[in-house]
Amino acid sequence: MSSLTDLCRYPIVQAPMAGGPSSPQLVAAVAEAGGLGFLAAGYKTADAMRHEIEQVRAATGGAFGVNLFMPQPALADPAAVAAYQAYRGSLAAEAATYGTPLGDPGAGGGDDAWDTKVAALLAEPVPVVSFTFGCPTRDTLDAFARAGTYTIVTVTTAEEARDAQWAGADAVCAQGIEAGGHQSTHHDDPRADHTGIGLLSLITQVRETVDIPVVAAGGMMRGAQIAAALTAGADAAQLGTAFLACPESGAHPLHKQALTSPMFVRTALTRAFSGRPARSLVNRFVREHGPDAPAAYPQVHHVTSGLRGAAARAGDAQGMALWAGQGHRMARELPAGELVELLAAELRTAGRG
Amino acid sequence: MSSLTDLCRYPIVQAPMAGGPSSPQLVAAVAEAGGLGFLAAGYKTADAMRHEIEQVRAATGGAFGVNLFMPQPALADPAAVAAYQAYRGSLAAEAATYGTPLGDPGAGGGDDAWDTKVAALLAEPVPVVSFTFGCPTRDTLDAFARAGTYTIVTVTTAEEARDAQWAGADAVCAQGIEAGGHQSTHHDDPRADHTGIGLLSLITQVRETVDIPVVAAGGMMRGAQIAAALTAGADAAQLGTAFLACPESGAHPLHKQALTSPMFVRTALTRAFSGRPARSLVNRFVREHGPDAPAAYPQVHHVTSGLRGAAARAGDAQGMALWAGQGHRMARELPAGELVELLAAELRTAGRG
Repeated sequence: MSSLTDLCRYPIVQAPMAGGPSSPQLVAAVAEAGGLGFLAAGYKTADAMRHEIEQVRAATGGAFGVNLFMPQPALADPAAVAAYQAYRGSLAAEAATYGTPLGDPGAGGGDDAWDTKVAALLAEPVPVVSFTFGCPTRDTLDAFARAGTYTIVTVTTAEEARDAQWAGADAVCAQGIEAGGHQSTHHDDPRADHTGIGLLSLITQVRETVDIPVVAAGGMMRGAQIAAALTAGADAAQLGTAFLACPESGAHPLHKQALTSPMFVRTALTRAFSGRPARSLVNRFVREHGPDAPAAYPQVHHVTSGLRGAAARAGDAQGMALWAGQGHRMARELPAGELVELLAAELRTAGRG
Repeated sequence: MSSLTDLCRYPIVQAPMAGGPSSPQLVAAVAEAGGLGFLAAGYKTADAMRHEIEQVRAATGGAFGVNLFMPQPALADPAAVAAYQAYRGSLAAEAATYGTPLGDPGAGGGDDAWDTKVAALLAEPVPVVSFTFGCPTRDTLDAFARAGTYTIVTVTTAEEARDAQWAGADAVCAQGIEAGGHQSTHHDDPRADHTGIGLLSLITQVRETVDIPVVAAGGMMRGAQIAAALTAGADAAQLGTAFLACPESGAHPLHKQALTSPMFVRTALTRAFSGRPARSLVNRFVREHGPDAPAAYPQVHHVTSGLRGAAARAGDAQGMALWAGQGHRMARELPAGELVELLAAELRTAGRG
């Protein structure tokens, strides 16, 4: 990964975590320590994204990235619309409990302001841009290349990696089933639920399918795991949950606390919060609504957004989206820079880097 | 892993695969090449198990192991019984299609002849015994220790590993979600479906929980993956699907062929064939019956046994249990001894062993 590992001292990437955790402070601290930090543009306006980029630039001269959510197809199938409406109806009691209305499913226009964000990033380029929920067109990837931006497409199968290489991505991020938050599956197919691939298996499948660099992601919390990913053929490792507990992370304090709480011993992939499979600690909301939640992203995200906010304000972790990877109980509450240095030291101990 | 790695030249274990694949020929070939082969006593009589042990001993002086299925609790809950009966009813059309009756759910007595097999293995000890679906009592593990047999308990969580160490197991086999065939979850809880842990995450969680050696299992097909598992903290790696395609494997030819067939691109954990979650290639039977299949092991195994046999005789891979790990498309059709040597060479190339 000539270009990407030239950008940072260690093959350690801080994953973009939309919804607050990937604060400019976190990204800057990671960059200063020699890792690659990622802002998460998802759910934000283009202006808010630009403001965060300015904050990072004011804090560090180090390299960083911005992650974009790809626009999703509209809910066209009548059965899917009906399933979405039934799910929305089933949340009425939650709305009453938290004393907040359900959200507008069309908030944000449904495409997460894709065109505006791409235009902004091409006008004022950042070092790295990564993509979630799909692969941009060759034209878009070419435009970023001309702007001098390194592009990474997040993939969950070898086929998605092949598509990304074909479209002209500089690298892929191979996201295993262990990862916290959303799975970046390119086409959300409910019939393929529960067929996601474990990271160690995925790294090899992707490595044997494409020639471009592979960033491994999913559940890693220790330097020895990063070393294992590199041994299997990855060029770098991306960690989210490991950075979630850092003081610089913008995650809600209850979310940080839940990672190592004995109240939460399991994670599951659930559509309950957003309509797309995402890994969360198993709490009341996941148990009660996960089994009924439809494939309807981002509609369900917008509908539950107010509920989640109200639960957080009420101090009720049982109603929040507690995104977490499978290694959550190994989280270490350290300043992000110290965590990067510790991971790098563990990586050396394990014989890599 | 002093004792276990003393038994074989390479830290490479051929997984026990019940139902035919783990033939004495396969086990002997692996042992001769310097790996550790495993017979699978599951679904067999104690006499058949003894006969296979004799065959291995006649073919090699190398070390090998025998895997036992732990007895499972009876179907006591009326709701579980009703779900089982509904599922049995839903298979009537399959029985008609294949022209074979559904099987007797109580075949084999339900405990897989546990007492008889343990007595046989204590009377004529083998080098290694491993356990699936639970952890034996301290008394049983002590008895094997006195007989000079090394014991390995298969686990899917750090808690199960802690229980195994506490009960006196010599080692644990940490089985990731990627593994083909049955997940060795100790207590089958349908509410915990889809919460299984990816191997790279599991190795570290188990390594940080117990002091005894850890054998890693789940989806590995290449020496670089074995090297990665060792780097993460495992002492050896257990591979099943990689050996399934060997000529010595007793797997049905259609099963071997399906591993790399473009007809089968995905695996899923399903209760469709046995009533316990097991990873299989996604075929018609999994698609049609997986969503309805209840937690009822081994009842469902016995009920579908005749169907699967009839499908195999009819040459219909869409009705067979095509157990496979997530790396199935990387299967290499090599004699088992050559495969062990190739994996060991890849392990050296990756800087381990």
